[in-house]
Amino acid sequence: MKLTILGCHSATPMIDTYPTAQILEIRNHIFLIDCGEGTQVQLRKYKIKFSRIKHIFISHLHGDHVFGLVGLISTFRLLSRETELHIHAPKGLKEVVTLQMKLADSWTNYPLIFHELDSKSSKLIYEDEKVEVHTIPLDHRIYTNGFLFKEKPHERKLDIKKAVKAKIDKAYFRKLKQGSDVKNEDGILIKNEEVTLPGPPSKRYAFCSDTAFNKSILPLIKQVDALYHESTFLESHSNLAAKTKHSTATEAATIAKLADVGTLILGHYSSRYDDINAFKEEAETVFESVELAEAGKVIEI
Amino acid sequence: MKLTILGCHSATPMIDTYPTAQILEIRNHIFLIDCGEGTQVQLRKYKIKFSRIKHIFISHLHGDHVFGLVGLISTFRLLSRETELHIHAPKGLKEVVTLQMKLADSWTNYPLIFHELDSKSSKLIYEDEKVEVHTIPLDHRIYTNGFLFKEKPHERKLDIKKAVKAKIDKAYFRKLKQGSDVKNEDGILIKNEEVTLPGPPSKRYAFCSDTAFNKSILPLIKQVDALYHESTFLESHSNLAAKTKHSTATEAATIAKLADVGTLILGHYSSRYDDINAFKEEAETVFESVELAEAGKVIEI
Repeated sequence: MKLTILGCHSATPMIDTYPTAQILEIRNHIFLIDCGEGTQVQLRKYKIKFSRIKHIFISHLHGDHVFGLVGLISTFRLLSRETELHIHAPKGLKEVVTLQMKLADSWTNYPLIFHELDSKSSKLIYEDEKVEVHTIPLDHRIYTNGFLFKEKPHERKLDIKKAVKAKIDKAYFRKLKQGSDVKNEDGILIKNEEVTLPGPPSKRYAFCSDTAFNKSILPLIKQVDALYHESTFLESHSNLAAKTKHSTATEAATIAKLADVGTLILGHYSSRYDDINAFKEEAETVFESVELAEAGKVIEI
Repeated sequence: MKLTILGCHSATPMIDTYPTAQILEIRNHIFLIDCGEGTQVQLRKYKIKFSRIKHIFISHLHGDHVFGLVGLISTFRLLSRETELHIHAPKGLKEVVTLQMKLADSWTNYPLIFHELDSKSSKLIYEDEKVEVHTIPLDHRIYTNGFLFKEKPHERKLDIKKAVKAKIDKAYFRKLKQGSDVKNEDGILIKNEEVTLPGPPSKRYAFCSDTAFNKSILPLIKQVDALYHESTFLESHSNLAAKTKHSTATEAATIAKLADVGTLILGHYSSRYDDINAFKEEAETVFESVELAEAGKVIEI
């Protein structure tokens, strides 16, 4: 799993800061998460292949998370895209995008499929044989979801020498990788563990922006490998965090600690802070493994 | 009059090219003309004071001319703007912006006033004591207007020495500047021209993007000081220009020549051309005074 930060500041794009957008590469998927103004330019800058993006996940309909979407949809059209594009987003976005396309008399030449979200409990919103995506209901000023990206278990690793020695026919190798016991050429049952090793561990990434400090998400994000949790403010502005339903770096770190996650990634910084290292320093007083989201940073999960 | 180009490429923002947006400074106004994605960042880059923009003119509702507007409106809100903002734009834009604000539950804390355009003939859409703005109906795939910005006549320049010598009371100086004849202390009528000189000439700027070659605009733009006319293509792609209702550099120059304008400013270049100097070279075969729009360029009119 590989996470590329395209933008990680709150509120409004500036000359050197970009609103929320991330690319998650997971089992051959390229998922775009949130899409603030200017995201399409950031995608070009970091050489993400536009055509490989088939799913876009939008947390909520504040501008700094979505105002770049209609431009990206239009650019896909100009690039003569033909493959489907799925947008997973709060209810209402389809109406906005459709109205803008209607006024421009510019319809997409590819299937554009909206999956509108309105549930207040966690839902499985995408699944294939390798990946699952679940919503993480967050506590913000408007309806907002985080997203939990889960790899399904990898196949077990076959020890071919042992399998041959145990007289198992090649035809059964696939079943072995999938974890089954099989009979050998003599009709004897061979236990799976005798000829296989566990595959690589399955990873999980949780994206949580924007939200007030909210313990109710803990069961959903328990022990994820990486947690992106917004930290719009430092603790010195906890009054503003409470008022605007955002979190401080301390609160983000507290959630990371309580959920026992692998790494905490901070972001959604308010532009009032000149030096984002202060977020890391504050969070590290609570939780030890902290990374800062920064435009262009690639984080291996 | 001073024109600052914020963006001048067509279709889609790239790493170093920006969609259409211009700032026209005219008699203490700062007018924003078109507002493609990323315009607010360009405004910051070129140090345009956000609070001084009170009127925005949108030519049409294709994304590369308008997708930056809702973000700019939101940013004005975040900056605690209080002064009125007037948007002059084709019918439909108010509905889109209002819907986006409703979904974000983010209403402006300043008066946001839409002046929706739908007339197919030229209209006076803004007027104060110093400036007039008229629409220029264009021929594009969707309803599109250019804009003609006209300074009203400047005051005449008073020759104070002559006025004193002619025994004119100070109380009449304002009237003299406005062009009236006045009576002096002895009751004798003094002709205005005897004590004043003409003020500086009034300038006119015509903005025409996007449009097919369209001679019907000639009476409106006759002898303007500067004409911005789109040139999406070179003549070698005149088939594409015709098909998409855009113009070539030759066509833009032909309009400039027929209208006998001062300077022609080209822009809205297709990204297929690596070197925009080719537009200037082609246009100069038809019309001699040609400037290229380039992001950051300031043109004194």
